Amino acid sequence: MASSKRDVLQASVWRVAASGPADVSGVEALFVAGLKPETVVAILGKTEGNGCVNDFTRGYATASFEAFFARLGVEAPCLVMSGGTEGALSPHWTVFAREAVTDATDTKDEPSLAIGAARTPHLPFHHLGRREQVLLVAQGVRAAMADAGIDDHKDVHFVQIKCPLLTLARIGEADAAGETVATRDTLKSMGLSRGASALGVAVALDEIDARDITDEVVGARLDLFSRCASTSAGVELTDHEIIVLGMSKTWRGPFAIDHAVMANAIDTAPVRAAQARLPETARLAAVLAKAEPDPSGMVRGRRHTMLDDSDIAGTRHARAFVGGVLAGVFGMTDLYVSGGAEHQGPPGGGPVAIIVERETIGKKES
Amino acid sequence: MASSKRDVLQASVWRVAASGPADVSGVEALFVAGLKPETVVAILGKTEGNGCVNDFTRGYATASFEAFFARLGVEAPCLVMSGGTEGALSPHWTVFAREAVTDATDTKDEPSLAIGAARTPHLPFHHLGRREQVLLVAQGVRAAMADAGIDDHKDVHFVQIKCPLLTLARIGEADAAGETVATRDTLKSMGLSRGASALGVAVALDEIDARDITDEVVGARLDLFSRCASTSAGVELTDHEIIVLGMSKTWRGPFAIDHAVMANAIDTAPVRAAQARLPETARLAAVLAKAEPDPSGMVRGRRHTMLDDSDIAGTRHARAFVGGVLAGVFGMTDLYVSGGAEHQGPPGGGPVAIIVERETIGKKES
Amino acid sequence: MASSKRDVLQASVWRVAASGPADVSGVEALFVAGLKPETVVAILGKTEGNGCVNDFTRGYATASFEAFFARLGVEAPCLVMSGGTEGALSPHWTVFAREAVTDATDTKDEPSLAIGAARTPHLPFHHLGRREQVLLVAQGVRAAMADAGIDDHKDVHFVQIKCPLLTLARIGEADAAGETVATRDTLKSMGLSRGASALGVAVALDEIDARDITDEVVGARLDLFSRCASTSAGVELTDHEIIVLGMSKTWRGPFAIDHAVMANAIDTAPVRAAQARLPETARLAAVLAKAEPDPSGMVRGRRHTMLDDSDIAGTRHARAFVGGVLAGVFGMTDLYVSGGAEHQGPPGGGPVAIIVERETIGKKES
Amino acid sequence: MASSKRDVLQASVWRVAASGPADVSGVEALFVAGLKPETVVAILGKTEGNGCVNDFTRGYATASFEAFFARLGVEAPCLVMSGGTEGALSPHWTVFAREAVTDATDTKDEPSLAIGAARTPHLPFHHLGRREQVLLVAQGVRAAMADAGIDDHKDVHFVQIKCPLLTLARIGEADAAGETVATRDTLKSMGLSRGASALGVAVALDEIDARDITDEVVGARLDLFSRCASTSAGVELTDHEIIVLGMSKTWRGPFAIDHAVMANAIDTAPVRAAQARLPETARLAAVLAKAEPDPSGMVRGRRHTMLDDSDIAGTRHARAFVGGVLAGVFGMTDLYVSGGAEHQGPPGGGPVAIIVERETIGKKES
Repeated sequence: MASSKRDVLQASVWRVAASGPADVSGVEALFVAGLKPETVVAILGKTEGNGCVNDFTRGYATASFEAFFARLGVEAPCLVMSGGTEGALSPHWTVFAREAVTDATDTKDEPSLAIGAARTPHLPFHHLGRREQVLLVAQGVRAAMADAGIDDHKDVHFVQIKCPLLTLARIGEADAAGETVATRDTLKSMGLSRGASALGVAVALDEIDARDITDEVVGARLDLFSRCASTSAGVELTDHEIIVLGMSKTWRGPFAIDHAVMANAIDTAPVRAAQARLPETARLAAVLAKAEPDPSGMVRGRRHTMLDDSDIAGTRHARAFVGGVLAGVFGMTDLYVSGGAEHQGPPGGGPVAIIVERETIGKKES
Repeated sequence: MASSKRDVLQASVWRVAASGPADVSGVEALFVAGLKPETVVAILGKTEGNGCVNDFTRGYATASFEAFFARLGVEAPCLVMSGGTEGALSPHWTVFAREAVTDATDTKDEPSLAIGAARTPHLPFHHLGRREQVLLVAQGVRAAMADAGIDDHKDVHFVQIKCPLLTLARIGEADAAGETVATRDTLKSMGLSRGASALGVAVALDEIDARDITDEVVGARLDLFSRCASTSAGVELTDHEIIVLGMSKTWRGPFAIDHAVMANAIDTAPVRAAQARLPETARLAAVLAKAEPDPSGMVRGRRHTMLDDSDIAGTRHARAFVGGVLAGVFGMTDLYVSGGAEHQGPPGGGPVAIIVERETIGKKES
Repeated sequence: MASSKRDVLQASVWRVAASGPADVSGVEALFVAGLKPETVVAILGKTEGNGCVNDFTRGYATASFEAFFARLGVEAPCLVMSGGTEGALSPHWTVFAREAVTDATDTKDEPSLAIGAARTPHLPFHHLGRREQVLLVAQGVRAAMADAGIDDHKDVHFVQIKCPLLTLARIGEADAAGETVATRDTLKSMGLSRGASALGVAVALDEIDARDITDEVVGARLDLFSRCASTSAGVELTDHEIIVLGMSKTWRGPFAIDHAVMANAIDTAPVRAAQARLPETARLAAVLAKAEPDPSGMVRGRRHTMLDDSDIAGTRHARAFVGGVLAGVFGMTDLYVSGGAEHQGPPGGGPVAIIVERETIGKKES
Repeated sequence: MASSKRDVLQASVWRVAASGPADVSGVEALFVAGLKPETVVAILGKTEGNGCVNDFTRGYATASFEAFFARLGVEAPCLVMSGGTEGALSPHWTVFAREAVTDATDTKDEPSLAIGAARTPHLPFHHLGRREQVLLVAQGVRAAMADAGIDDHKDVHFVQIKCPLLTLARIGEADAAGETVATRDTLKSMGLSRGASALGVAVALDEIDARDITDEVVGARLDLFSRCASTSAGVELTDHEIIVLGMSKTWRGPFAIDHAVMANAIDTAPVRAAQARLPETARLAAVLAKAEPDPSGMVRGRRHTMLDDSDIAGTRHARAFVGGVLAGVFGMTDLYVSGGAEHQGPPGGGPVAIIVERETIGKKES
């Protein structure tokens, strides 16, 4: 039958070690081994900076990959660099690719990993951390879902967004334009931007009604959150890069994704439950998670000191600690644990996505 | 029979929250509730400093407890303050008490938690980090075992030692005396002192032959280690405070201890195994562990950046991360996770002691 | 003549090295040498903590001095501990004493250093950083001026205030009472409290009209400032400790004070001018100054990075740098340079008080 | 006369603000304004990283300039990036150029600034911090002097060297080759490399006899030092980049250089003296200095805490503080103050080079 031979999309995912923010050699090795550069849709990086305002490892990594893809004559994919490999977290790149394959099978019983990407327009700096940013991002998430071919928001398991932050220069620019910014504290602007972006995901996935979003709720109404959002702020962009990961029956291939929501920093039960839902024989491909210091100052009734420490940023504490919690569960340290989880999961908790590669007949044969 | 009525020792253990380094109110509440101050043999504290050279929270806590016990007219117990509650670790005191109780039973099937304490003489500063310190500590550990009534070193599960460090003033004192110190780097002196103390434990417990100890092995021959040692360096003392925890049939009471050795920072399997060996119905009383950045720069083949970070001390990274690993396993954050694990367990790993309170008939009745 | 023999007040000032936050030995040595403990009106300390929220060296020093004065059977003087000896700044105590002396002279040509002290009532936490705090402090400053016998505010050269800050526990207390706090960010609360206290000085000294003070101006209208205020926030108090330093003809003795206002972090010209106004033969007794990162992000048109650094608090940067500027001018490092200069001098600048001991005939004779 | 028309060399120096490690726009503007890219011999940068092991701003800046010069089709000049703009120090580039100009004058009374450059061969990692590194650098300095046309070492006022450091990977490489490294502490390796490089300068300038150099003196015999050396360690190179700055009668142009040696961190007298030796009407072109925490733990008899602080590296403290001292003297903050001054000036002090642009007749006419 004609229908048995047609082009479908297939996603693939690799974790690649990085010896530093400029080390693209591991990705280069993937290309040498056969991966086509133009099929790469996104690279998520964990770089070894402080993950805060003056973390230049993100920009350095981004510039390094841009130069690398320029040398290959291929447009750079969506590059989402998240700074901070505190504790034993290991600097690495997670490479997401998708390509059209010829599908020989008539029927498709089970869904596979699907990937979509989108960028928003430039965000005026005085919109950062406000309703306008939420709506701009929601539009972008819908575009990325469309790009992934996912209609039902229940099939979305993770939405990764890289969003901008305020610097003193950008605040000055807004001032000069006669606009007022949401905050003049540059570190705080990262949290507002991450929070507004997460609310954008929640709006796009019908987790929150857009009419409930005002400037005031951003960073304040922490009971409003997305169960799938992961957002990172970086000085190197002024728009938003959006990646949607989900499951779709229209996609092929061995990769699958599921997710859990941790209620607090030590809430391993839902993570283990999600792990248990995935095929036992599957190989762990990637773990993507968010972490933040519990804003209540407590974890399960015990005081923590992350928010009272003026020597180490709370986001660094949280990445180190939750990195340990998850590394203890999964037995590996090259996890994408990203700090600052405002409106990403409940306060003090956060979403955890697990991507596995299922054992396939084709694999067994090779 | 006369033998059925005799005095035996019973140990007890409490975890008490601390709102700051000077907060003795939780311990005061224990005394109000009936615990006799003179039965307290040791207090182990996790205070919220940086755990490094200029951590004054340890001295502050020690001074606060000394003043508190002075007000009570009771000699202060052994005070072991370990700085650093990175991540979601919670500042707290663990109080160890022992008292003579009248034993009504003829026979004793199972052993109970036993506690012994000792202090060494003052350590000359040029002996710090050298063979002399190892031997001094070994002698102190044997004295603490005798104090606990433990003969067989297999019954020892944890030895906690507080040891001195070098400051610029102390180095100057040694210089003035015409002696050379093991290092002029004050932060490094903490590691050497912790390492020599741990080797002292290993010698006392026959884990290492004393003849194998030279000045050179301290901090260098990391294959030499104790499976039970936990050592902390503090600026506030110039001798060693030693606490031995073990099991003994001559002791009574519901508390029991066991221990595991983690081979690396994410090695949860032996910890879960030790947990499984303890009675299922037991309540967790305390977890005491050591953590350090793996000196190889790798954890299970993945690079970590703890030793390359000039903004945050490696010991702080390690406490935060391993604190997360163990909090994920035990479901609580007031764990005694102490940094700097030189010669305390294998390189990059460390000992973990678990103390539980078993369910007793007397308890059930009440 | 009867008038030639009467009791007048005389002030004296000492700088004493501190080997650590608990080192009271240098002050003890002053007492052994003849200074009467009950004449000490205030001790200003520079302790070696981070000067931010979790700086326990201040509380530790305060507790140490309180215990020390308790041992002497004397009520403790006003203790103002300012954390942070960044760069080569040297930890030390500045001791201020005043006592009644019998005055043999008929006439008094020149004024001498005068010292007054006061404490305010407890500050309700929801008043912190708001108009209520400003007015409470203004009242306290007037009380301290009265205590110093200074009527004209032009004779006031320095007002040192130790003010409270918000902790998570205190915010919770305010929440529980149904009140809203000015900020939920504990580090930020230090700045608001320092700023409101400085505005209180400005109101008391007629530098600002009390009617211009609203909740909104605190931390925002940086053009409103005092030229004499120096305020430090500390976790260890909930009221305000106030010390007024000025010149008065009713006081006797060799000590004199003057002050300058730096317009920015490198503005040494007014400091040198103030230095030049003092007698050439005078010995430098103490330098008291405030420092802060210029909120504009620039110093004389050149960008600084103090406010973009997420590894080191801006106040720590500023103390280190302005400490260097002043140490270069005065040739000594035991300067009281205190961070966080909100409303204390112009934005990015700050007041500098210079206390000298004039050469006296009595001195020459001895 | 034929002799009146000949080609001579002329040096020029610019300070250019940098908005971040990748901001080459200021240098681009110089090129637009007429400076020929191929005449640039060196760019010294102060970038806003921590200046320690994991400071990626240096590599990022270097990569950015390399890409920039590649776009121009010109070989990149010697790029020496020094991390750390603590306090109010301002990130900037100092551009050094030299070009052949036609000299119209018969006679030349006064010397002008002369610039020479050289690179050494790759340094085997086990030679780092040892005699071999000293000799390799001495050879390089002589080559750079020859390149500058300076014969007499008294005419050399500043030698800037960028040297390598050890990382865990490089230590592993040396281990694998069966060699032993001078230290396994990566932060410490930076100090050893800077020290050995400085001793190389001292040997080349006859300040020290090469026969006095053994492996043991590096980092230990601090009485051996160069009065002109400034060395920076960076992870991004494995050889040495050397720039020699001096005065020569064979060079033309308005620029002149002199230098001072500070005996300690607050020793401004020799700096002011050097400043006074330069023409009063001259415009300050650049200040290049070294700073370090005094290894004695004291500055002029007063204790400092830079070496006891485990939260902030001592080199960061020293840059902030000495940056303040020099900014107070020179009235500007875009100073090249570089941390880690082992064997560069006396312990706790360091060299300070001052470059000025003299007022010229030609200038006045334009």
